[in-house]
This record gives sequence, C-alpha cells and structure tokens, in this order.
Amino acid sequence: MARLNSRSQLVAGLAFWFCFWHCAESGKLLVLPQDGSHWLSMQIAVEKLAQKGHEVVVVMPENTLVMKTSSEHFTVRTHSVPYTQEQLDEFYRAIGENIFNNAHLLEKVVQFYRNVSRSVSMYVSACRHLLYDKELIHFLQQSNFDAVFSDPVLPCAPILAEYLSLPRVYFLRGLPCHLDFQAAQCPSPISYIPQGFTTYSDHMTFTERVKNVLMTQFNSLVCYLFYEKYEQLATEFLQRKITALELFSKTSVWLLRYDFAFDYPRPVMPNMVFIGGINCAQKKPLSKEFEAIVNSSGEHGIVVFSLGSMVSEIPMKKAMEIAEAFGTIPQTVLWRYTGETPPNLAKNTKLVKWLPQNDLLAHPKARAFITHAGSHGVYEGICNAVPMVLMPLFGDQMDNAKRMESRGAGVTLNVVDMTSKDLSDALKAVIYDKKYKENIQRLSALHLDRPIEPLDLAVHWVEFVMKHKGAPHLRPAAHDLNWIQYHSIDVIAFLLAAVLLALFISLKCCLFCCRKCCCKSGRMSKKSKSKSH
Amino acid sequence: MARLNSRSQLVAGLAFWFCFWHCAESGKLLVLPQDGSHWLSMQIAVEKLAQKGHEVVVVMPENTLVMKTSSEHFTVRTHSVPYTQEQLDEFYRAIGENIFNNAHLLEKVVQFYRNVSRSVSMYVSACRHLLYDKELIHFLQQSNFDAVFSDPVLPCAPILAEYLSLPRVYFLRGLPCHLDFQAAQCPSPISYIPQGFTTYSDHMTFTERVKNVLMTQFNSLVCYLFYEKYEQLATEFLQRKITALELFSKTSVWLLRYDFAFDYPRPVMPNMVFIGGINCAQKKPLSKEFEAIVNSSGEHGIVVFSLGSMVSEIPMKKAMEIAEAFGTIPQTVLWRYTGETPPNLAKNTKLVKWLPQNDLLAHPKARAFITHAGSHGVYEGICNAVPMVLMPLFGDQMDNAKRMESRGAGVTLNVVDMTSKDLSDALKAVIYDKKYKENIQRLSALHLDRPIEPLDLAVHWVEFVMKHKGAPHLRPAAHDLNWIQYHSIDVIAFLLAAVLLALFISLKCCLFCCRKCCCKSGRMSKKSKSKSH
Repeated sequence: MARLNSRSQLVAGLAFWFCFWHCAESGKLLVLPQDGSHWLSMQIAVEKLAQKGHEVVVVMPENTLVMKTSSEHFTVRTHSVPYTQEQLDEFYRAIGENIFNNAHLLEKVVQFYRNVSRSVSMYVSACRHLLYDKELIHFLQQSNFDAVFSDPVLPCAPILAEYLSLPRVYFLRGLPCHLDFQAAQCPSPISYIPQGFTTYSDHMTFTERVKNVLMTQFNSLVCYLFYEKYEQLATEFLQRKITALELFSKTSVWLLRYDFAFDYPRPVMPNMVFIGGINCAQKKPLSKEFEAIVNSSGEHGIVVFSLGSMVSEIPMKKAMEIAEAFGTIPQTVLWRYTGETPPNLAKNTKLVKWLPQNDLLAHPKARAFITHAGSHGVYEGICNAVPMVLMPLFGDQMDNAKRMESRGAGVTLNVVDMTSKDLSDALKAVIYDKKYKENIQRLSALHLDRPIEPLDLAVHWVEFVMKHKGAPHLRPAAHDLNWIQYHSIDVIAFLLAAVLLALFISLKCCLFCCRKCCCKSGRMSKKSKSKSH
Repeated sequence: MARLNSRSQLVAGLAFWFCFWHCAESGKLLVLPQDGSHWLSMQIAVEKLAQKGHEVVVVMPENTLVMKTSSEHFTVRTHSVPYTQEQLDEFYRAIGENIFNNAHLLEKVVQFYRNVSRSVSMYVSACRHLLYDKELIHFLQQSNFDAVFSDPVLPCAPILAEYLSLPRVYFLRGLPCHLDFQAAQCPSPISYIPQGFTTYSDHMTFTERVKNVLMTQFNSLVCYLFYEKYEQLATEFLQRKITALELFSKTSVWLLRYDFAFDYPRPVMPNMVFIGGINCAQKKPLSKEFEAIVNSSGEHGIVVFSLGSMVSEIPMKKAMEIAEAFGTIPQTVLWRYTGETPPNLAKNTKLVKWLPQNDLLAHPKARAFITHAGSHGVYEGICNAVPMVLMPLFGDQMDNAKRMESRGAGVTLNVVDMTSKDLSDALKAVIYDKKYKENIQRLSALHLDRPIEPLDLAVHWVEFVMKHKGAPHLRPAAHDLNWIQYHSIDVIAFLLAAVLLALFISLKCCLFCCRKCCCKSGRMSKKSKSKSH
C-alpha cells in the first residue's frame, strides 16, 4: 500500500513537473506570415516557439514565393488564392527585370506605382480568400489561440486578429510612412528622422530638412496606395468603418528588426522591442562543396555576391560588366546567379544557384560582400564584420545602403548606371582600404555586444503576450486622447483665453478707475469753477 | 625539452584564458554615489561589477548617512566635507520630524523650499571639497578610468566626469522637472505624462491637464533650486559657462529604475535602460530571530511596516494612533521603529530597530506592507506581490503612492491627518479584500516576466560603456539641433514664405492679366465709342 502510494506520488510528481514546464508555459499561437524575405527571419522565431512546446498554426496562401506549405515544426493550413504559382513567379520575375531598365525618374515613379498597386491588389485578393474561407475561419475561431504573430506590412493579419479579438505581436522591419511609429503613438521629430526613399542621414542640411518635410506627402501617398484597399476590405469584413492606423494601434508588442548600430537613434516606445540581426542566428557549417571553394581561395579570400531572394537573373550586358569587374580582383567570387553564364566570366568567379550567405560571410576568408542592401543582407554583413559594396534595387534598400555608407562601412553603387570599373574600384576600396574593415568591425562589435540574443528576446515577448493576453501595461494613455487633446491645444486655448480675459478685466477696471477719477476731478473742477464764478 | 615546451605551452594557454576572461573584459570604473536610499540599490550593481573583476574606486564624503567608508569589494576614497557626522544626522532627523507637523500648504511649500535649499547648499559644499581636493583629483586623473558610474540627482559626478572627459552611466529613479528626459532629447507629451508632485495618473481630466501644464512652472523652479548652485560651481570649476542640462546631455546610458508595471508608459530613448526592481535582487534567508517571529504569526501572517531609511522615529501621539490600529488586526506587525515604545503597543506588534524588508516581504506569510512609498519599497512590494498601505512623506512618494492606488494594489493614507481607524480600515481592506491581492499579483507577474534580470542588464550596460568608451551610436542627432531646427520652425517658415510668395506672384500675374484685358477692352470700347461718335 505504501509502495502504491509512493508510486502514485511519483507519477503525480512527474505529472506536476511535466505540466509545470509544458502545460503552464505552452500556448496556442496563430502565425500569419508575409511571403518573401520577410518570412526567412520570422520563420526562425516561429520554429523556436514551436520547439519550446507551443502549438503553432501557420496560415498561408497555397501559392507562395519562398514559404513551404508543410513543416516538421508546426501545423500549416493553406487557403486558396486567385492566382497560380506560375502567375506569382512571373509577376516577381518581371519586377526584377524592370529594375535594370534605364528609366527616367518619372518612369521609375510610374513603375513603382504600378508594381505596388499590382502587388497590393494581388495580396488583397488573397486576403479576401482567407477571410471568406468559412471553414478555415470556423477552425480559427474554435482553436482558442492565445495570440496572433505576424509580419503586417500587408495588413491581412490585423484584420483577422481584430475579428478573432486576439492580442497581436508584429515582427517587421517597418511600415510605409512610419505607420508603425504613428500607430504606437511614438513621436517622430521630422527634423532628424529621415523619411523613407530620401536616402538622407539623421544629420540633414536645411535643404534636406525642407525636402524631408515635403517627402512626408509622397510617403502618405505610398501609404494610401498600400492600405486603402485593405481598409475597404476591413470595413466590409468587420462591418464597421476602420482605418489601417486603428488596426495597427491595437498592437501589443512590436518586434522591430532595428538596431542602432545600423539605424539612426530616435524616440521609441516601451512596447517596441529591437531584434535587428535576428537572421544571423541561423548558422550552419559550410557544405563540402562551399568549404572546398572557400579553402581554395588562398590568402586573397572570397567575395560573396547576391542580389537577394527576388533577383537571381540580370540582363546579359550588365552581367558581362559585372563579370569583367570580378576578373580584376584576385579574390574568389561566389555569385548567386541563375541566368545564362556571361561569356567573359573569369576563372576566379563561381556561379551558384543558391549560396549559404550568412555562413559564407561568417568565414574568416570573407573579404567583401556585394549586396542589394536588403535589411537581412546588411545585418549579415554587420554580424560578420564584412565590408560591403551596396547595389540597392528598390524599396528601403536605397536608405539601407546610405546608412552603411554614412557609417563608412561600405560603398554604394547604382546598379543601372555603374560601369565595370566602378565596381572594380569599389571592391578594391572595401577590400584594401583598411578604414572600411575597421568601421564595419566597430559596428559589428556594437551590434553584437548585447545582453540577450535577438531570437531569445523575440521568443520571450511572443510568450509574454500569449501568457498575459497582451501587454496592456505598455500601452500609452495617448491612445485615449484625440489630436487636440494630445497636443494640449485645448489647454493652451483655455489658458490663453484666461490670460486674455484677465487682461481685459484688468484693463476695464483700470479704465473704470481712471474714468471715476477723471469724472471726480472733472466734477471737482466744475464745482470749483462754479464756486469761483 | 618536449616536456618543457608542453609546460610552457600550458602556462601560456592558462595565461591566455585568464587574460581572455579578465584582462580583455575588466576595466576601471569610477563610482560617485549619492547618499541615502539611492546608494542602497546602486551598491548591488557596484558590488557585482567589482566581483566581475573590474577595478572599482568609489569616491564618497567622509561623513555619510548610510554609506560605509570601507568595503571588501571595492576601493573607497573619501574626501573632506564642511560638516560633521552629528550635523548631518541632525539635519535629516529634523527633516523627518518636520513631516509630522500639521502644516498648511503654504507652510509646507516654505518647508520644502527650506529643506531643498539647505540640503543642496550642504551637498554643493561637499562637492566643492571634492573638486578642489588636489591630491584626490590628481589621483583620479592618473587612474585612467574607463567610465564614471553615478546617481546624479545632485550633479557633482557630471561636473567631475566632464572635467576628466570620461563617458558616463547614470543610475537613478529620475531627476526633478524630468531633466533626465529633457537631457536625453526624449519627447514628453504633457497631455498624458503627469508632472512630479501632481499625483495625477496618465489619464487626466481637462482640469488636471490644465493644472499639469501650470505645474511645469513649479517644477522648473524646483529644478532651479536644485541645480543653480551646481551650475555656478561647474562654471567656476570647468572655467566655461555650462548648464545642468548640458552636463546631463552628455550621458552615454541612463539606467532608470523604471518599470511599466509601476510607471506609466511613455516615449523613451534608445540609451535608456529600465532596471526597476533591481533592489529585489538582494535576497537572503531570514535570521533565526525574524524566522521565529514570522513562524509564530500562525495563519494570519505578518504585516511589515517601515517608513524608510530616513524616518525611524515619529511623534508619540502619532505612534500611539498607529499602535492602536495594529491592535485591531490579528496579524503580527513588524514595525521598524527606533523611538520610545508607545504605551498602548498591542501584543501582536514587534518593534525592531532594523528589519530585512525584502526578505520579510518575500515570505509567504507576508499579508500587507505599510510603506512610505519610496520607490525601493514599492518595488519590493511589487516583486513579492504584497498589497500595500501607502503613507507618502515627501518627494516623489506621493506620486508613487498614487500610482499603486490607481492600479488597485494599495490604499494611500495621509500620515499626518489619518486616524487610528483609517489605518485599521486600510489594513483590513488590503488584507481581506481579494482585489488588492489579485491586482498586486497581476502587477508582480508583469514585472517579473522579463527576458533578463535588471541587475544583469545594469552590469551589461556599464561594461558596454566601459568597453566602447561610451555609446555614441545611441546618441540621437537631436543633440546637434537648436530649438528652432528641432521643431522645424525654420522649415515651416520657409515653406510658408514660399507658399505666400507663390500666391503673391500668382495674384500679381492675375491682376496684371486682368488689367491688360480691362485696358484692352477699355481701349477697345473707347475706340469703338470714338468710332461711333
């Protein structure tokens, strides 16, 4: 009997400890990812959360660019979309191709408008398919999730989270027109916070500050372009008028891929958590094939070249110019390229369909990194202290490139205009001019000297929101004030009115007293006059 | 030979690893502490830094309230002061005594002015003794410190750090008139950030918002009172005109004893690190004496009562009222009290000259905490989830008390006006009304659910500043703008002028065209008239 008791106590004890580590801590998380490079870094956090015992359900479209519709780590539920895989691939291929057209500024603006407009239309239609997928929505409603975790640059997740009344954690690099900072009620002094697409640093001349103010109007248009159709869909689906700003303002925690070794310091809010460089966490040893290439590079080392997940082919003329430049340096160049081999390719250049970018950059033989200045690539350059040649293509890449250049850690080139010599000179500069290496090493040291790894930070805050059903203690009271109240305009008007009233009354009193005195003296003088008469 | 080689290799290896852990990481830190409760929590971080192998030199006055002039962990260097230990003790005793005088508001303001003025004069004179101690200053100059670590509420450290050209990390609860936020270039919207001494929450009525704006003037006066004499001393010592704001604006990292489970969420800056609750880190098991008292309290548990390090005696009349209230509850009360025993002291009340506050609150039998609402005490209440009866005495304590009350985690009493029944009712409320316990447990859970302990965070950032000689990447560009530029007033004026000029030119053009047309038609009509004639 005693034995039975001790055994049942043991079982109960084990169950308690199992539950202590798993039941109490584990929760249910709904993940709504954003396709493309956005998913590549967020996936690391999602996998870690799943590995920690949380039940993770990822809802994604059936056709995607880089997302796999099955995973060993989490459950994937797909929804139908009104486009085929081929149409999606062709859409992005055309965008990539357009970049290399030598267009004028106006043509570029029209092209940008067309690209954004088309991709928003495509993703809004995909979102509509998700929201009106009755079976899926019923499943999500029944699942009792603890939170929604998403990259909300195209805000389907905020609409769904609002519908399901779930707390939200967003994982992102940033929203157009700083809508994330607006929604978080974070002040953004325009005098030293450069607007997107300006390529300005935080130290602006007077002319730049004027242009920066004017640029807010352009960025508002970009925001309108991004979010107008989503606002229509949200209003229709939630059956009440709602704006994108309102949807975003209900965010519990913003996990921002920011780091002040890369980004300019600025005011932030307590519910903003900075996880820049999270993508460097995924490290693997090099495969034998790559190890062999790197080792055979000798004392000169290697140069890594990739234009990101969206652009793997470039026009032959440009490819030949680039190949020519590579022939002028003694380093071995690893070039991610899926197009036709340029006929002038030098012996030191190896074309590969895919390359383990972060792992190659982490190798001591990495001498330079040629990148399109996507934020992931730039962070990998910083993490591994490899100086960069930056060839921004679109979106925030121009700003990213400018940031690195302003910190003396890289050289920016215009991929369309540059000549073979420009590239050769830039490469030689970042490889042989010590200042580039010193600057990137300094940035890298600042970036890596942190009290906690960005991945652990991201996982902590997702778990925090799941456990506490949000983070209401981090929500500033500013959300409950209107524009007039927030800027204390009513208070200033009241105080001004009070001062004016006080002045008016004082003046009236003075005038009244003066009149009394004058009248008195007038009467007195009259009396004295009449007496004297 | 081979043996010798392997031995020398071993020695070299050991030396390398010793150096890897100690030489590379260890630095020299100059600590300039602030006396009183300020030192109690900062000391924990200083000791940890010393334990980590850094060479820590603490410079303090020869006469202090709570600081010990010798330590096993770090080197202490003292400087002379123009007051004796007795004078210092008497000064603070008198302040404590004054609190219990039933004074009118105006009397209180005068008393506040007198206290601040006297203590500032005293500490400025102590600072002068430090700065003009040639031998000590020479020693500090020769010591090649990596950084200055200080609580700068009375800014002697900023003057010395400026003189020694050392990067600074400040450890503080806050500065008068939010000077810390001003110096960090952190926006502080007055519409939802309550000013000190208002006891407002972040949700203010219109009247409160008006008073909050007016209160900025009072707080500016307080700042003037605090810092004017220091500014004079700094200008004299550094031989150039310098303000307190300028001195504080050179801070590398602000370690703020803030936590948003306690404080209201508001904009912050990247070089602000939040280490609220750091004082809870120091935990020890209870001594046998206290363990025995706590255990004998039975199912009713204990109540802990302390009015902080500065007030351990109170007038007999008040002491008797308090003792009477304690007689009405079944809990055992542990009261830190050095005065004469009140004759009506009930059996359940134990007077002690000192008590291990945090360790007692951490005991499961702790039912309530009667505190003067100093930030250290409040954090210990939050850490250990013990509901509070708050009796604020001076300084920021009124605001702290209001914060806890607004979160439903305590009841505030006016220690001067309260009756025995008020205290008895408040105690019964926080002990028996479940909502207080639930609210403090909720706050405690939010506060303790953090990715890294505040002590580790503080130590990390001090080491960061020592290693990188500051944190320039966290310094916003706002520091390089004047008031007009920061608020873009020049840009707005320019754009306004441009718009007005454009309007003026358009108007002139229109008028010119109209005149031309009119003249033409006038001439035409004249011509036609003359023709018709």
